[in-house]
Amino acid sequence: MSNQTIHVAIAGLGTIGSGVATVIQDHATKGSAIQLVKVLENNPEGSYAKPLYQQHPNLFTDDYQSIVTDPNIDVIVETIGGCTFAKTLVEEALKHGKHVVSANKDLLATEGKGLLELAKQSQKHFLFEASVGGAIPIIRLLENYLSLSDIEAILGIVNGTTNYILSEMDVNNLSFETALSQAQAKGFAEQDPTNDIKGYDARYKMTILIYLATGMWLPVEAITVEGIDTLELPDFDYANRMSCKIKLIAYFSRENNQLQAFILPLMLPQEHTLAKVTGSTNIVAVKGKYSDEISIVGKGAGSHPTASAIVSDIYKTRGPVVPPPFRETDVLYQLKPFSEYVFKHTLRFDAYDQPGIVGHIGTTLAKHGINIYALEQLPQYHRHSGNEDQVIFTLTLEACQEGLVQKAIEEINTAPYMAKSVFVLRELCH
Amino acid sequence: MSNQTIHVAIAGLGTIGSGVATVIQDHATKGSAIQLVKVLENNPEGSYAKPLYQQHPNLFTDDYQSIVTDPNIDVIVETIGGCTFAKTLVEEALKHGKHVVSANKDLLATEGKGLLELAKQSQKHFLFEASVGGAIPIIRLLENYLSLSDIEAILGIVNGTTNYILSEMDVNNLSFETALSQAQAKGFAEQDPTNDIKGYDARYKMTILIYLATGMWLPVEAITVEGIDTLELPDFDYANRMSCKIKLIAYFSRENNQLQAFILPLMLPQEHTLAKVTGSTNIVAVKGKYSDEISIVGKGAGSHPTASAIVSDIYKTRGPVVPPPFRETDVLYQLKPFSEYVFKHTLRFDAYDQPGIVGHIGTTLAKHGINIYALEQLPQYHRHSGNEDQVIFTLTLEACQEGLVQKAIEEINTAPYMAKSVFVLRELCH
Repeated sequence: MSNQTIHVAIAGLGTIGSGVATVIQDHATKGSAIQLVKVLENNPEGSYAKPLYQQHPNLFTDDYQSIVTDPNIDVIVETIGGCTFAKTLVEEALKHGKHVVSANKDLLATEGKGLLELAKQSQKHFLFEASVGGAIPIIRLLENYLSLSDIEAILGIVNGTTNYILSEMDVNNLSFETALSQAQAKGFAEQDPTNDIKGYDARYKMTILIYLATGMWLPVEAITVEGIDTLELPDFDYANRMSCKIKLIAYFSRENNQLQAFILPLMLPQEHTLAKVTGSTNIVAVKGKYSDEISIVGKGAGSHPTASAIVSDIYKTRGPVVPPPFRETDVLYQLKPFSEYVFKHTLRFDAYDQPGIVGHIGTTLAKHGINIYALEQLPQYHRHSGNEDQVIFTLTLEACQEGLVQKAIEEINTAPYMAKSVFVLRELCH
Repeated sequence: MSNQTIHVAIAGLGTIGSGVATVIQDHATKGSAIQLVKVLENNPEGSYAKPLYQQHPNLFTDDYQSIVTDPNIDVIVETIGGCTFAKTLVEEALKHGKHVVSANKDLLATEGKGLLELAKQSQKHFLFEASVGGAIPIIRLLENYLSLSDIEAILGIVNGTTNYILSEMDVNNLSFETALSQAQAKGFAEQDPTNDIKGYDARYKMTILIYLATGMWLPVEAITVEGIDTLELPDFDYANRMSCKIKLIAYFSRENNQLQAFILPLMLPQEHTLAKVTGSTNIVAVKGKYSDEISIVGKGAGSHPTASAIVSDIYKTRGPVVPPPFRETDVLYQLKPFSEYVFKHTLRFDAYDQPGIVGHIGTTLAKHGINIYALEQLPQYHRHSGNEDQVIFTLTLEACQEGLVQKAIEEINTAPYMAKSVFVLRELCH
C-alpha cells in the first residue's frame, strides 16, 4: 500500500457517479490521495453532470476507449448501470490493467463470475461494496471478517423502495398503488418500478451475498422470488392482529451442504430485529455459528451513502490483490428445491359469499394432511361487487412443506366460489 | 497473504481464551490454516482450561518466555486481561517478532500508544477487534471502511452488563441492587462489578474508538464518566412518561477540530435506534458526513462471539502490516471541556417536605439564567423516613450548558431541605 495519488475515472455521472465526484473533491481539500482525472459521460448537460461539466469541462469525454487505454488512470468507477455497455467497459478496463469499482448489482449477479475471473487473471481489484446495501459494509463483513464456514444464515431488507412502500401501507393504511405513487413522487421509486416491487433488485443483491458466503454463483432465476404488488391492506391488518409486520425479506441459510434462498414478503414477529426497520432503511443480519447474530443497519441507497462505499473501495485498491478466503474451499452446495422449504403459511381467500366455502377449504386442506392453526373472517371485509357479495377470510396453517400447500391451493383455486387465486404469505418457523 | 499454517499460542485460558481454542479446533476440522500450538496458563486445572488440558496436556506451559522465544509460533493471543503481566507479555511478543491479537480494552486504552508504536517498529500486527463490542466488527469499520475525516459522531452501547441491568430496571421494575444481583447470578456481571457499573469499561472502549477516528489517544481520565448505580426507579418512570429510555451511552463527536466525548446515562427518545437495544446486546452507531448513520448490533461479550472476533484477527495477520490511513493526518484535536457541552438536563430532587422548596429551586435556577421546561411532583413519591416526610420531584430544563447547571446545583445542594444531592440525567439536544 503506497501513499501515491490514485487517479480515478468515473464512467456514468448520474445520481451515484456525481456523488462519487462530490466526495472525491471534498476529500481532495483534506489532502486525500484520490484525484478525479476523467469522466465518461455522453450527456454532460444532464442534471447530475452539468455542475461538474461547467466547472471542469476538460474532465469530460464520451470516448470510453480513451479512458481504458489512458496509462494515467488507475481506477475506473463504473456507475453506468445495466449489463451491456457496463460489461464491455469493465472487461476492457480490467484487460487494460485498471482496477474497477462498481455499484452495479445486476452486472455482478449475472456476470460476476466471469468478471471476477478476469480480474484475477489481470491481478487487478474488482470491488463492489456499493452493490449491496449502499453505505452498509456487508461485502467486507462477509469477505474479510466472518469465517465463512461459520455463516449459517443471512436475512436482509435490501431494497429501500419496497420497505418504504410496506411501511406506508402498514402505518398510514395507503393502498399499494397510492404508496407507490408517493414513493415515486419523493424520488424513492423509479418511474418503472418493476425491478424493485417484483423483488428482482433484492434477488440480484442476495445472489451476490450468497456468492460471498459460499463461493458459488447461483443462477439468479434459481432463487424463488415474490414481489410486494399483490399485498392488500387486509393482509397488514391480519399481520398486526398476529403481532407481526410484513417485510420483503432476502433470505439465505446453509445447513451442511444444502442451501435455502428466496426473496419473499414474510410475516415477522414485531419484536424481530428486521421487523423494526422501517422506511427506506436497509438491514442485513448475519447469523454465525460463533459470532451469534450481527446486524448492520444504514442507508441502502442514495447518492452520498452509495458514493461513500465506492470511495472506500477506491482507497482499498491501494492494498494487495488477494483472493478472499472462501476460494480455498472446495465444498459444493446444493440449492434445496423451494417446494421442500417449511413455512407457517397464511392464506387469504377472496371468495363469492355462499354456503359451504369454509367446509370445502377445510376438507381440501385436511385431504392434503394440512392442519389449520388460526382462522378469521371479519365483518368489515364483506364487499359488494356487481351482483355478488364478496368476502375475504384468512387462515394460518401449522408449519408444513411449501409443496403440500401448493397442491392444496391448486385444488382450491379451481373452486367456483373463488373470486381470485389464493394469496399466500409466509412466516419462518425456526 | 500466504496459505501457510498460522501457529498460534493462547496466553490465558479463561472464558475468552477457551472460546478461541474451541473455534480454532472446530475450524481445523474444516481445513483451516490456523493451528493451536501452545497455551500459557498457570492453572490448567481451572474450569475453563481443564477440558483442553485433559485432552492435550502437552500444549500447556506456565513459562511465558518459552512462548515468546519459540520460533515456531507466529501469533500470540493475549486473553489474560489487566495491564501488568499482559503488558509485559505483549511487549516481549512484539519484540520477538510475534504478531499479537488482544481482547484487552484496559491495556489498549492505557498502553495502546506505546504498544502500537512498538508493533510498528517490529513490523508486526497488533490487532484488537475483540476489545470493543465483542463480535461486532466496529474496529474494522473505523479502520478500513469509513473515510476517517468523514466521521462526525459515534454513539454506542458498549457494555452489556449495564444495558442488561437498565433493561431489567425499566421493564421489570427491579431496583438497581436486585437487577445487579440477578445479572451476577446469570453470569452477566462480575463479582466485583465496579468497572461495568461505574462506566469505566465503556470508557476504555470509547478511548479506543476515539483513537481510531482521530489518531489521538486521549488520557482515559479526560473523558467524563458517570455510572448507572445512582439511578432509581422513579427515574425510569419519569423517562417513560417523557417517551424516553435510559441508556448508558458512550459518546464521541467531532466538529472542526473540537472533540466531545463522555460516558453517561442518557435519556433517549424511545424511537432512537439505541433506545431499542435491550438486554446484553451491544450497538455502535457511526454518523458519517456522506455515509449517514451506520449501526452495527450484536453480542458484545461472551466466550464464542469474542473468540469469533479474535479468530478473525488471527486470519488477518496473514495480510501485510500497513498503517491505517488516519496516521497520515496531522490534524490536532482538542477535547472540549465538559462544562461547555449543551444538554437538556433532568434533575431529580430528594427533599424533606416543607413549604418553599419549589420557590427556592425556581428562583435559584432563574438567577443562573436557566429555564424550566417540565416539572413533576407525583403523590406516589412521598416517603416517610424517621420523623421527616420526603418527596421526590423531577424537573427538566431547557437546553443549556453543563457548567451553568452545575453552578445552580451546587447552590441548591446546600439548601437545608435537600435529603441528598441533586441527581442529574441528560438528553442530547441536536
